Amino acid sequence: MPNYRLDLAYDGAGFRGWARQPGLRTVQGELEDALAKVIGEPVALTVAGRTDAGVHALAQVASFTIARELPESLPAALNALTGPDLAILAVTAAPGFDARRQARSRRYRYRVETGSPPDPFERGRAHNWPHPLDREALAACAALIAGSHDFTAFTPTETEHVRFERDVVEASWDAEGDRVLAFEIEADAFMRNMVRVLVGTMLEVGGGRRDVDGLATLLDGAPRSAAGPTAPAHGLYLLEVRY
Amino acid sequence: MPNYRLDLAYDGAGFRGWARQPGLRTVQGELEDALAKVIGEPVALTVAGRTDAGVHALAQVASFTIARELPESLPAALNALTGPDLAILAVTAAPGFDARRQARSRRYRYRVETGSPPDPFERGRAHNWPHPLDREALAACAALIAGSHDFTAFTPTETEHVRFERDVVEASWDAEGDRVLAFEIEADAFMRNMVRVLVGTMLEVGGGRRDVDGLATLLDGAPRSAAGPTAPAHGLYLLEVRY
Repeated sequence: MPNYRLDLAYDGAGFRGWARQPGLRTVQGELEDALAKVIGEPVALTVAGRTDAGVHALAQVASFTIARELPESLPAALNALTGPDLAILAVTAAPGFDARRQARSRRYRYRVETGSPPDPFERGRAHNWPHPLDREALAACAALIAGSHDFTAFTPTETEHVRFERDVVEASWDAEGDRVLAFEIEADAFMRNMVRVLVGTMLEVGGGRRDVDGLATLLDGAPRSAAGPTAPAHGLYLLEVRY
Repeated sequence: MPNYRLDLAYDGAGFRGWARQPGLRTVQGELEDALAKVIGEPVALTVAGRTDAGVHALAQVASFTIARELPESLPAALNALTGPDLAILAVTAAPGFDARRQARSRRYRYRVETGSPPDPFERGRAHNWPHPLDREALAACAALIAGSHDFTAFTPTETEHVRFERDVVEASWDAEGDRVLAFEIEADAFMRNMVRVLVGTMLEVGGGRRDVDGLATLLDGAPRSAAGPTAPAHGLYLLEVRY
C-alpha cells in the first residue's frame, strides 16, 4: 500500500502536544483530521518525536500508509485545513518508510533567555531565567551528558518507558546573540521530559545550587527525585530527525 | 517638575495600537495606568511614534512630567503591572526631554515573508507574500523613496496631518535569511499608515503590476487612490528613534 513521509513545523503554544486526545487540540489530531478530509479515508500517523504540550517543532517527521495514491497538491490542501501555527512542509512518497522506527537520532534545542525584563518577542519561545549562570559549569554539564547513560532521573517516575539508557551523540550550550543561551542535544531517542529535566537540573548547576559532580552521579540511574525541576515546555524545540 | 524618558518594546498583536481608547487595551492606556498606580498621581505620556493597532516596537520612546521624583525601582514595578507583551526597558531622569518634539528621526522596518507555507514562527511577525518579487525593482523603489517628497498618496484621505512632505533619510530593502525581505526606512517623521502603503505599493511594483516610474509619480502629492493597498500591520516594527 502507498506509504508517505510528512515533514512539518509547529508552534507548540496552541497545541496540547502531539498525541491525539479527545476534545483537545493536538498536532496529531489536527493533522489526521485534515488528512482524512483530503484523502477520504482514516489515516493513522506514526511520529518521530512525540512532543509534549507547548513544545515546538522546526522539523518534525511523521509517516502513514493509505489504500490509494495521494494527489500531488496535498500539502497546499492540508495547509488550508490546519491552523497557521502548523505548517506542512512536504509530503513525499516513501515506500517502507517508518518515521519512528527508522529514525537514527533526534536533535532538540532548549532556549533560555537570560535578560530582564523578558523580551516580548521571546514570550512563549524561550524560558526566561534572569539569574546569574556560570557558563563554564554549563559547558562541563553538557560534556558529562554526552555519551551513554541511564537517564532514569530525567523522566517522570510513572513511565511507559522500559529501557532507560540513551546514547547522547552530542550535547552543548551555545549563545544566540547577547540574551539567549541554548542547550542542544542529539541522542538516539529521548524519554518523556528528558531534555527539560536536564535543563532544569543544569540551571541549578549554573546558578551554583548544585555542583557539576552532582550531575555526574545522576547519570547512572538515580531516581527522579534526585534531579532538578522540569524546565517549562515553551523553551524546547525539536530541531531535526536523522535517518 | 521632574521629567522622565521611558524606553519600551512591545509585541503589537495584543494591543489596539498606542493611543488610549476607552475600553480597549492600548499601549498608552496600559502604561499610564501602571504608572499612575506606582507613582500615585495621573500621568500623561508623550510618545515618539504613535503606532497603529498590531504594529510592533523594538525601541519606542515616551516622556512624562510628574510632581515628585520617582523611586529607583520603577522599571521592575512597572513590568510587574504590564503584560508580558510589553517590556519597560528603562526609565531615565531627563530634564526638559520631550519624546515627540525632540525626535530627529524615526526608523521603521517592514518584514515580508516570501515563502510558502507560512512559517508558524513568523505568524503575526511578518506579512506572508508567497508571490514572485523582483528584487531589483524593489531596490529601485527604495532609491526613489529616499529624499524629500509629498507623501499624500501614502496616508488616508481623511487625515489630521496638515503637512504632507517628509524627509526620508534612508530607505532600503535587505534580506533576512532565505525567506524574509525587509524594507527599512528612516525619516524625520511619518504620517499614519505611510510605511504600510509604501510597502503595499512596492509589492505591486515587485510583482510587475505597477512599474517603478509609476511609483515616482506618486511621490509628488498624488491622491491616496493612486497608490497601492495598505500592507498589514503585523509586518511593521518601530526600530529606533534618534534624538
